[in-house]
Amino acid sequence: MPDVHDYIKVRRADIDAALKKLIPTSPECPPLIVEAMRYSLFAGGKRLRPILTFATVDTVEPANTADNAELVRPAACAVEMIHTYSLIHDDLPAMDNDLLRRGRPTAHVVFGEGVAILAGDGLLTEAFRILARWPDTQDPAVTTRKLRTIERVAEAAGSKGMVGGQTVDLQAAGQVPDRKSATLDEFGLRAMHERKTGALIRASAVAGAIMIGASDDKIDAIESYATHLGLGFQIVDDILDIEGTADILGKTVGKDAAAGKPTYPAIYGLEKSRSLAARAIANAKDVLHDCGLSGRLDEIADLVLARKY
Amino acid sequence: MPDVHDYIKVRRADIDAALKKLIPTSPECPPLIVEAMRYSLFAGGKRLRPILTFATVDTVEPANTADNAELVRPAACAVEMIHTYSLIHDDLPAMDNDLLRRGRPTAHVVFGEGVAILAGDGLLTEAFRILARWPDTQDPAVTTRKLRTIERVAEAAGSKGMVGGQTVDLQAAGQVPDRKSATLDEFGLRAMHERKTGALIRASAVAGAIMIGASDDKIDAIESYATHLGLGFQIVDDILDIEGTADILGKTVGKDAAAGKPTYPAIYGLEKSRSLAARAIANAKDVLHDCGLSGRLDEIADLVLARKY
Repeated sequence: MPDVHDYIKVRRADIDAALKKLIPTSPECPPLIVEAMRYSLFAGGKRLRPILTFATVDTVEPANTADNAELVRPAACAVEMIHTYSLIHDDLPAMDNDLLRRGRPTAHVVFGEGVAILAGDGLLTEAFRILARWPDTQDPAVTTRKLRTIERVAEAAGSKGMVGGQTVDLQAAGQVPDRKSATLDEFGLRAMHERKTGALIRASAVAGAIMIGASDDKIDAIESYATHLGLGFQIVDDILDIEGTADILGKTVGKDAAAGKPTYPAIYGLEKSRSLAARAIANAKDVLHDCGLSGRLDEIADLVLARKY
Repeated sequence: MPDVHDYIKVRRADIDAALKKLIPTSPECPPLIVEAMRYSLFAGGKRLRPILTFATVDTVEPANTADNAELVRPAACAVEMIHTYSLIHDDLPAMDNDLLRRGRPTAHVVFGEGVAILAGDGLLTEAFRILARWPDTQDPAVTTRKLRTIERVAEAAGSKGMVGGQTVDLQAAGQVPDRKSATLDEFGLRAMHERKTGALIRASAVAGAIMIGASDDKIDAIESYATHLGLGFQIVDDILDIEGTADILGKTVGKDAAAGKPTYPAIYGLEKSRSLAARAIANAKDVLHDCGLSGRLDEIADLVLARKY
């Protein structure tokens, strides 16, 4: 089995190539919106979510890799497009007002706020078009899986998930006129992150399992794994916002603290946050082992904990 | 057959009731985002698009009304949610900067820009969740139609359609930094409107035809009808922006002219615009008659031309 870093490299290249093909370039699309969508989509993201989709498949069904890749590639691309849309909108002046993302000026700095909002809207919409369109088959089994994936991804991205989490985040930051800021205790912080970051990470893994027709038991295990992984990811994110540098992270650091946002280090301190992250990753791996799964998802959990960017 | 105004009244009530049920209110959804989504969704819109979905079905298959309503109701709700999301985002300061919509302060005036952006994002996302989820059946025929509808609606709403049209509109208004304004000649104006307004109107009708399993010939005819209807609707919209009053329209009037936006009256004058609108509506009705269809879609075409708001 190739080294996990090589695995990620290969999958990343696969995802990037697929995304390039999937973003419409037909003369019917105004060039400016295509340019804006591509600007953020190809800004050198880690591709954690689509890699998780592939790694789920490669863990649940290590054989049959090529056929499975055909089945899950569209879903992998769709979750990355939805993630990118959420970054574009989160960076807007009305949200986090961020000028730097993935080492480059944010979309609204380059294209103006209007086109940035539209680029996000476009990526979200195209993601669902792709999920409905590909893989191009009339096989009733696959058709049913596609619908289930769309529903699952929409639930993760919508008002119960990502959009809901970002709303709570805005409220917590006191950015909603005529409303009291929500105060986030430990429970509220975790609930916010489970929506804002966790839901899509979970759906990215689950989409892979659904698309290859995994059993409900397996899907539940993957969901549980990804829930712990998402929590670990978020805690590490909060730690990096304090310890990282803009140079390595490619985004503004220290913003959470400056904005008075509740974070794990703010509530628990750095040491305890580190052990909470380690605990979450250990839990993710335990879930896998308990149901006899191992492989790539195991390795990816380790990488999420060790990451420096 | 009941009078068309009664028909619309009944369908509107049906759509409003369905939308109320479909917008998630579970304790998992932060109340603020639900409130913001509902604020714009229940602001007294005309419901043209979902009524068009129903009227298509009632025209193509006048019998079997109750069963068909079950099949198409989710799609009808979804197109209205997508329409509402587009209004919220179009009204933002970075776009048309509108303070009044459907007779009430726009979403960003009430909830702030951040939550308004998120309410739009949420409505768009929930629309796709609903299209994937409902009607709740494993029937392979319906499953395939659902996927086809999702693809069709996403195409209409995405970068080739509504999002693309709004991008061209922003460029034409000179609102994109470091870019030349696009100059819209007559051809460009029509192409912009076909994307910005026409595409979703077309998809609203086509979705109805797809969901009841209409033949490809019928779907093509409905598509052609709705293309003419959408053009007529837009020209009347431009005329009302000059001749209407905020009181009746429930939105700011004269904004297009003030913003120097290209409109049909600006290019052709009012008289010629009126005859172009009449021509478009006549074309829409001709398409119907040529393929032996008549009924509700015919009456709705007349109403679109005669509307004063």
